[in-house]
Amino acid sequence: MGGMYHAPVMRELMEQFGKLPGVGPKTAGRLAFFILSLSEREVEAFGAALVNAKKTMTLCPICFSLTDITPCQVCRDETRDRRLICVVEDTADVFSVERARDYQGLYHVLHGSISPMEGRQPEDLRIKELLARLTDGEVKEVILATNPDVEGETTALYLAKLLKPLGIKTTRIAHGIPVGSNLEHADAATLAQALEGRRELP
Amino acid sequence: MGGMYHAPVMRELMEQFGKLPGVGPKTAGRLAFFILSLSEREVEAFGAALVNAKKTMTLCPICFSLTDITPCQVCRDETRDRRLICVVEDTADVFSVERARDYQGLYHVLHGSISPMEGRQPEDLRIKELLARLTDGEVKEVILATNPDVEGETTALYLAKLLKPLGIKTTRIAHGIPVGSNLEHADAATLAQALEGRRELP
Repeated sequence: MGGMYHAPVMRELMEQFGKLPGVGPKTAGRLAFFILSLSEREVEAFGAALVNAKKTMTLCPICFSLTDITPCQVCRDETRDRRLICVVEDTADVFSVERARDYQGLYHVLHGSISPMEGRQPEDLRIKELLARLTDGEVKEVILATNPDVEGETTALYLAKLLKPLGIKTTRIAHGIPVGSNLEHADAATLAQALEGRRELP
Repeated sequence: MGGMYHAPVMRELMEQFGKLPGVGPKTAGRLAFFILSLSEREVEAFGAALVNAKKTMTLCPICFSLTDITPCQVCRDETRDRRLICVVEDTADVFSVERARDYQGLYHVLHGSISPMEGRQPEDLRIKELLARLTDGEVKEVILATNPDVEGETTALYLAKLLKPLGIKTTRIAHGIPVGSNLEHADAATLAQALEGRRELP
């Protein structure tokens, strides 16, 4: 919204919206004015929803996903397969995997990925907590489902090396062409991985 | 984020984000999880910014733009040309025109446009307040800067007809703005051209 005069309360609100991922200064301005079009009651409900979510959600002491109950919905579910742990970077990734509906094991949330560039070291992640979960011999396989970018791959390789001496099967989710997508739209790196990961048809 | 289990506080926060213009369910989920990555202090500041903006901003009793001071920054500015009133749909449009830097007159914010389809009638807009501003003979020209869409054009034609008997010059901003677009999204140069190319309505 340029450098012209804005009321301090509006400038502050635009700054807050501007912190959200994917929201530039123009969108922030539009959102701030949208807020003024709501009733005071509606705006208070929005503010309360922000604070309530932050205050209520805590880390599951087992898998470290964000949850409103302890332990979380997945960890307390007796029907889940406790021999499998799927390792992801963030709690949002748990929901992505759950949406696929195929997975019935447990999770472990690292809370980030290794990135020497951005100063994120292995000790900043929930790695020793993962190792602690593997000591009782119940877990038979750890699926590394970190993101297929440089940081996620680095993290997966680091964990694979760490888990090898424990004698637990360690797997990495497959890379390839997204289902319903098109070869034409796939980038070279994805296609190279899809070719490398090819499997024989029955 | 699909139909799977979400904590009620997260579901509520996603719903609140989903009310924002241009935010679908997927983005709402992403934003809700982003909020949890902030500190409690940061989230409280966000919530306070929402409520403060809504509580502080009121309508200028002269031009009806949203303002934190009464009368607003423009109406109180003695250097502005009081013979000119630029009529816009929303307060955000005032900032769009200000960004063009070419305009030195006053404003009048209608708070919407005429849309029989959506049940918005002339009496729902700040039209009689505009007419009241034209009674003392100081205003020589009314520039109709409603959006160049069906509702905006309808509103401009309605106002032109209403103002004609008053003997005040009534102009419409030129179509330098892409038709079907929005004042808010126009760049400064286009808006400046649109203002310069304004024509008197017959």
